[in-house]
Amino acid sequence: MTQMEIAQKGTSSEEMKRVAEYEEMNLEVIRQKLAYGKAVLPKNKLHKIEKPMIVGEGFTVKVNANIGTSQAFFSLEEEKEKARVAIEYGADSLMVLSTWGDLKEIRKAIIDLSAVPVGSVPIYDSAMKSYQLKKNVVDFSEKDFLNMVISHAEDGIDFMTIHAGITKKVLEHVKNSGRILKVVSRGGAIIAGWMIKNNKENPFYEYFDELLDIAKDYDITLSLGDGMRPGTVLDASDVQQFEELFVMRELVEKAREKGVQVMLEGPGHIPLNEVELNVKLMKKIGEDAPIFLLGPLPTDRAMGYDHIACAIGGALAGYYGADFLCYVTPSEHISLPTIEDVREGVIASKIAAAIADLARGNRKAWWLEKQMALSRKNFNWEEMFKLSLGKDLARKKYKERPYLHEGCSMCGPFCAIKIVEEFF
Amino acid sequence: MTQMEIAQKGTSSEEMKRVAEYEEMNLEVIRQKLAYGKAVLPKNKLHKIEKPMIVGEGFTVKVNANIGTSQAFFSLEEEKEKARVAIEYGADSLMVLSTWGDLKEIRKAIIDLSAVPVGSVPIYDSAMKSYQLKKNVVDFSEKDFLNMVISHAEDGIDFMTIHAGITKKVLEHVKNSGRILKVVSRGGAIIAGWMIKNNKENPFYEYFDELLDIAKDYDITLSLGDGMRPGTVLDASDVQQFEELFVMRELVEKAREKGVQVMLEGPGHIPLNEVELNVKLMKKIGEDAPIFLLGPLPTDRAMGYDHIACAIGGALAGYYGADFLCYVTPSEHISLPTIEDVREGVIASKIAAAIADLARGNRKAWWLEKQMALSRKNFNWEEMFKLSLGKDLARKKYKERPYLHEGCSMCGPFCAIKIVEEFF
Repeated sequence: MTQMEIAQKGTSSEEMKRVAEYEEMNLEVIRQKLAYGKAVLPKNKLHKIEKPMIVGEGFTVKVNANIGTSQAFFSLEEEKEKARVAIEYGADSLMVLSTWGDLKEIRKAIIDLSAVPVGSVPIYDSAMKSYQLKKNVVDFSEKDFLNMVISHAEDGIDFMTIHAGITKKVLEHVKNSGRILKVVSRGGAIIAGWMIKNNKENPFYEYFDELLDIAKDYDITLSLGDGMRPGTVLDASDVQQFEELFVMRELVEKAREKGVQVMLEGPGHIPLNEVELNVKLMKKIGEDAPIFLLGPLPTDRAMGYDHIACAIGGALAGYYGADFLCYVTPSEHISLPTIEDVREGVIASKIAAAIADLARGNRKAWWLEKQMALSRKNFNWEEMFKLSLGKDLARKKYKERPYLHEGCSMCGPFCAIKIVEEFF
Repeated sequence: MTQMEIAQKGTSSEEMKRVAEYEEMNLEVIRQKLAYGKAVLPKNKLHKIEKPMIVGEGFTVKVNANIGTSQAFFSLEEEKEKARVAIEYGADSLMVLSTWGDLKEIRKAIIDLSAVPVGSVPIYDSAMKSYQLKKNVVDFSEKDFLNMVISHAEDGIDFMTIHAGITKKVLEHVKNSGRILKVVSRGGAIIAGWMIKNNKENPFYEYFDELLDIAKDYDITLSLGDGMRPGTVLDASDVQQFEELFVMRELVEKAREKGVQVMLEGPGHIPLNEVELNVKLMKKIGEDAPIFLLGPLPTDRAMGYDHIACAIGGALAGYYGADFLCYVTPSEHISLPTIEDVREGVIASKIAAAIADLARGNRKAWWLEKQMALSRKNFNWEEMFKLSLGKDLARKKYKERPYLHEGCSMCGPFCAIKIVEEFF
C-alpha cells in the first residue's frame, strides 16, 4: 500500500508518526491530509529514510536542494559532499539531477547517504544515454523511458518529475506564441523535441496509466513537471503555462484514483505581483495537490544572486500556499553549482520557508522566533547562533569582529537594548 | 527655496531635470509630486550631488546603504571604501552613522567623495559626545542637540533622521506593554532615556518648529525616525508602533506647511503577512509622504543572512508602496559590517528594489528585464553580465566553472534553449 492508501484505511505508517512528531501535529490530521491528497509523504518502499517529510497544506514549508553532475564537472565525491552540506543546512529533500558520469552509481551513492527523501528526473538519463550513443538527445522510445522509470524506482528514488502535461495542444500554443524563451525546462524541452520529431502525443501523457502502475508498486510520489514554466518574467502567466496546468488537473485525478501520491511543479520566472495569482490558481485547478515550486524568480536580473531572488519569490509563494520550495543557487543561469553554492542556496530557501511558515501562522515557527527574541534580549549569543538558519556562519562573523563588553561591535556603548535596560 | 517650494512655483531645479532623465519621466510629473510632498529630492543647498535621487510615489524604488564607525572599529579609510563600494554597486544614497572617531571628519570625507545624497542621525553625535565626557549617553541639552543639527547641516548633510514621534504618551504605552524588546532603535532608545531621566516631553517634538527652520534654511529632507519600530516579529504592528505613526502625521503636516521636505521611516521586524498592512497604513496616515524602510525583516532567525531576510521584506514592501529601502548587511545583529558586507547588502537590496519596480509596473524596469531575456536567448554573456545587479560577480562565477561550447556548465548539451532552437 502507498502512504495515501494506508491513510485512507485509517491506519498509520512509521513515517506518519515521525512527521507528526516533527510537525507537532496530531496523527489524525496527517492521515486526513494524506488520504485526500492534500499532502504527500514521498518515500519509496525500498528506501529507508531517517528524516521523512510531509509536504502540503497546513504543514511547514519544505526545501529541496538539486544536486548532480554535468558534462563539464562530474565528480562523485563533490556530489556526495553537496548532499551532505545540503542536509546539514536543513534541506528537507534532495534531487539528483546528474547528466554525466555513471548516473546509476551517483544516484545510488546519494540515496545511500541521504537521511532525507531523494528525487530524480528520469528523462535526463534517457537523453544522456542517447547523447552518448551519438544520437540526438530526443532519440529514445516510450519503452526506453518507462524502463528508465523502473530503474530509478528500483534504486529507491522517492519522488520523480514527469513532464506529462505538455500535450500537442499545449505545444501548438507555444509555437504560435510571442514567448521570448519558448521552453526553459530541460525535461520539457526534451519532451517537446521528441514530440515534434516523432509527430506524436506526449508519451508520458499517453502512458500515464503505466507510469501510475510503477509509481504505485514502489510508492513513488509523482511530481508533475512544469515543462511550460516561464523562463523570463516577460513570459509569465501566459496561456501555455495555464494550459499545461489544466492538463495536470486530469493527471492529479487519475493518480488519486489509483492511490498514487502526486504533487504539482510550478513556475519559474514570475513578477512579484503575479505570485499570488499563480499559487492560488495552482491550488484551485490542482484540487489542492501540494505545490512544489522552482523559484519563483521575480526578476531575471539577479545573476550570481538568483538564490536571493528565489528566496523573495519563494517566501511570498509559500505565504500564499506553496508547500515545497526548490532552492536556486547563486550559480543558477551561470554554471554547475559548487559545494558553497549549495550551502548558500539551502540557507536562502530555508529563510524563505521560515518566513512563509510564520506568515501562515505555524505555531512551531512562532515559538522558534520567540526563543530568538528572548535570546537577543538576554545577549545569549550561543542560543542565538543555535536558532540561526545560517547556523555556524553567524558565529563566525561574530568572532571575526568581536566586542569586548556585553553587546556587539556594531553599537558598542550605544546599544538600544542596554539603554532600555537602564531606563525602563 | 527648497526643492518643494521650487516645484510649487512651477519652476524646475537642475536636480529635477537630472532625476526626470534618470526616471525617464516628464518634468511636470516630478514637479507635481514634489510640490505636494508625495516625493522628496534630498539635497542640501551646500552639497553638490552628481547623482541626485527622487524618492516617492511613482518613481523607481531607491536603496540606502548605512556606513559608519563604531567604538570597536573606526577606520576612516575603511568607511571611505565602504562608501565607494556601496555607490559602485548601485546604492542611491548613503547614511553616515558613525559613533566613534572624529565624527565630523568622517562625515565630511564621505560627503566629499559621495556622488549620491548623504544622510545622518545627529543624535548619535550628541550621545557620543556625552559618553566621551564620561557622562551618561543621554546627558545633553535640547540646545546641544539643535546645535548638532546645525553642524550637520553646515557639513552638507542631505537628509536627517529625527526621532520626533516618541511622545510621552507613546512611552507610557511602551512601559506597560508586553513587548519583548521595548525599543531597538538606537536614536529612539536615547530619546526615550532622555525623556525618562529628565521627565520631559520629547525635545524634538517640542522643538520641531526650530528643526523645521534649520531644515528649511539648508533644504534638508527630514526623515521621521521610527523609534518604536518592532525589534522582533512578535512585537510587530502593536499600539505603540502605530501611536508613533499618528504623531508623525502631525509632523508631516507641519513640515509641508513650511515647505520642508519630509519622509517617514518604518519598521523593523514585521511578519510577511503584515507587510501590506504596515505599508498601506503608513501611506494613508502619513498623507502619502515617501516611505523609507529599514527592512522589514520578516523573520528574526536569519542572523548572518539578514540581508536576504531584508530583501524579502523589502521587495514586498516596495511592491505595496514603500519608496526607499534601507539595506541590511549580513552582519546585522552581529557586528560592524565589513566592506564585503556592504557590497552584499547593497546587491540584495538592489534586487529587492528591481523586483518591486517590476511589480509596480515601472516601464524602465520592464525594459531592462526584456534586454536580459533577449541576451539569455542569444547567449550574449557580456550583455547579461552588464544587466546583472550583482555586476562583475556573475562574470567571475562564469569564468570559474566554464563550458567550452555555447551554453554553460550546468546543462551542457542538454540546454533547453538549444534544444528549442533545434526543434521550433
